[in-house]
Amino acid sequence: MSADLPVFADIEAAAARIAPYAIRTPLIENAVLNDKLDARVFLKLETLQRTGSFKFRGALNKISQIAPADRAKGVVAFSSGNHAQGVAAAAALFSIPALIVMPKDVPAAKLEGTRSYGAEVVFYDRLRDDREAIARALCEERGATLVRPFDDFDIVAGQGTIGLEIAREAAARGVKLDAVLAPCSGGGVVSGIALAIAAAIPGTRIASVEPENYDGMRRSIAAGRRVAAPGGTPSIADALMAPTPGEIPFALAHRHLTDALAVTDAELTAAVAYAARTLKLIVEPSGTAGLAALLSGRFLSSGKIVVAVLTGANCDFFAVAQACAPTRPI
Amino acid sequence: MSADLPVFADIEAAAARIAPYAIRTPLIENAVLNDKLDARVFLKLETLQRTGSFKFRGALNKISQIAPADRAKGVVAFSSGNHAQGVAAAAALFSIPALIVMPKDVPAAKLEGTRSYGAEVVFYDRLRDDREAIARALCEERGATLVRPFDDFDIVAGQGTIGLEIAREAAARGVKLDAVLAPCSGGGVVSGIALAIAAAIPGTRIASVEPENYDGMRRSIAAGRRVAAPGGTPSIADALMAPTPGEIPFALAHRHLTDALAVTDAELTAAVAYAARTLKLIVEPSGTAGLAALLSGRFLSSGKIVVAVLTGANCDFFAVAQACAPTRPI
Repeated sequence: MSADLPVFADIEAAAARIAPYAIRTPLIENAVLNDKLDARVFLKLETLQRTGSFKFRGALNKISQIAPADRAKGVVAFSSGNHAQGVAAAAALFSIPALIVMPKDVPAAKLEGTRSYGAEVVFYDRLRDDREAIARALCEERGATLVRPFDDFDIVAGQGTIGLEIAREAAARGVKLDAVLAPCSGGGVVSGIALAIAAAIPGTRIASVEPENYDGMRRSIAAGRRVAAPGGTPSIADALMAPTPGEIPFALAHRHLTDALAVTDAELTAAVAYAARTLKLIVEPSGTAGLAALLSGRFLSSGKIVVAVLTGANCDFFAVAQACAPTRPI
Repeated sequence: MSADLPVFADIEAAAARIAPYAIRTPLIENAVLNDKLDARVFLKLETLQRTGSFKFRGALNKISQIAPADRAKGVVAFSSGNHAQGVAAAAALFSIPALIVMPKDVPAAKLEGTRSYGAEVVFYDRLRDDREAIARALCEERGATLVRPFDDFDIVAGQGTIGLEIAREAAARGVKLDAVLAPCSGGGVVSGIALAIAAAIPGTRIASVEPENYDGMRRSIAAGRRVAAPGGTPSIADALMAPTPGEIPFALAHRHLTDALAVTDAELTAAVAYAARTLKLIVEPSGTAGLAALLSGRFLSSGKIVVAVLTGANCDFFAVAQACAPTRPI
């Protein structure tokens, strides 16, 4: 592919751009988790980021660069989840109209969340309509800027600021990291983090973690080119179901990832419950993938210093309670 | 009263003592909360402290000072809640046997939590037995050290390290705080914080927040001497039901508190739901008292920079889900 790839300096520039607005999220430890894994595990709490997920970072990095003359024309995004809220909130900060293309059957909570930031919502039919075509048509009609969820230079650079913060915080604490694990769908966040960590702490392992059957990155890394995962039954990790990594994310991941893993839905559910019960953290199933890889032993952390990025917390609260006590009827 | 009172230097000494073991918990902001209150609100996440509450700090400060020759004789505490887990975990770090006196009807989760840190549990009958007498007898029998929940020099100094961390973090961020709010039961944590904040950031308002009918500190401050709250129906804030503040906490609070507030159970429940849904934080009802005072408008924060200390997260997860969706049957 010929698209420009972001470099480390683009992440540093993104960090400066988002600093006035984004939360520099905490990096925490838990003694019980450390004991359990015989490791030192740091958790990067993007669950506490504005809009409840890391998506705000990339959206803000993209949207803040829209030329003043083009701002009134607005932005368009297609998403039923965290990206929608990230775009809506970032656009609102610059008084830019946001139009989000969502499926007709979007859960009420996500629709309300998106509208709460002032975005306009256009619905499509999952079976009949092509959401990307709808979004592109709306962009042409309005002269609006399309904000893609992951296959975008500025989105990847924005998500990469997580890696930069991790590297800086580890240095400030005098800690030498062995590995960083992050969830992967289209690959925007894990490839941005990989770029940052590879540059800032060379030699650190960087692992993507996907749900089984939605492991497009793992298969693509193995094949040396972008290939699709089989998909099938929906995963509990509803935000990680992109079948194929984006071009920009794959190009970076191919260069910088050292591990590409997959976890089962049972392992994700166990991680949701462990996060709530033991760590006292609300994490949506998709956001626990890195932690699930550690808890399940799919990534062996014994004796190591590792970071798991907890990417989001926008989930039905009863689903978390259910994960904690599956035998108790709700 | 004639008991020695801790001073700021005792909190500084406690901070050095607990530094190798305790989590320096995050101080976070949330844009939606700030907008809602037209304020800048920092949340101190003691929910992420070891054992899931601030109690670990005081227990560790006390227990780490037990002379090596006395360690084998153990420690004794009476508590059915967070103090039990704090004492058990702190004792385990120094290989000190811990014996916790708990009511026979203690919830299974709290019993398991306490035992998970290796503590021995002795049961008493709430109606027939005097738990303090049982604890004192056990101490005499074994030569063990009694670790009181709040009316203790070292416990108060240990909890005060929260205030020291808040003051240091605010200074590091260049923020001038207007007020700090913390939950109050026997007054250990709020009086320790008040001592630290009054010394480190003079002029800052410091508010205790209690459940209605368990507002012993508010009544005592008004009376100028320790008086009991009426009690009655148990509060949802099960950790805040001490009727009367301790001697040491009251003496410090009388000197340093600027506000003594009470909130209703409905306001606490609303704060639990707000924390989970909007802030993505698990906070037990008792731990939300400071936040509840802000959300309910009982403490007017408009235009101010304030800190609410979220003191713990050891609660039934279904109770949190229930608070979030009271109309949905569980």
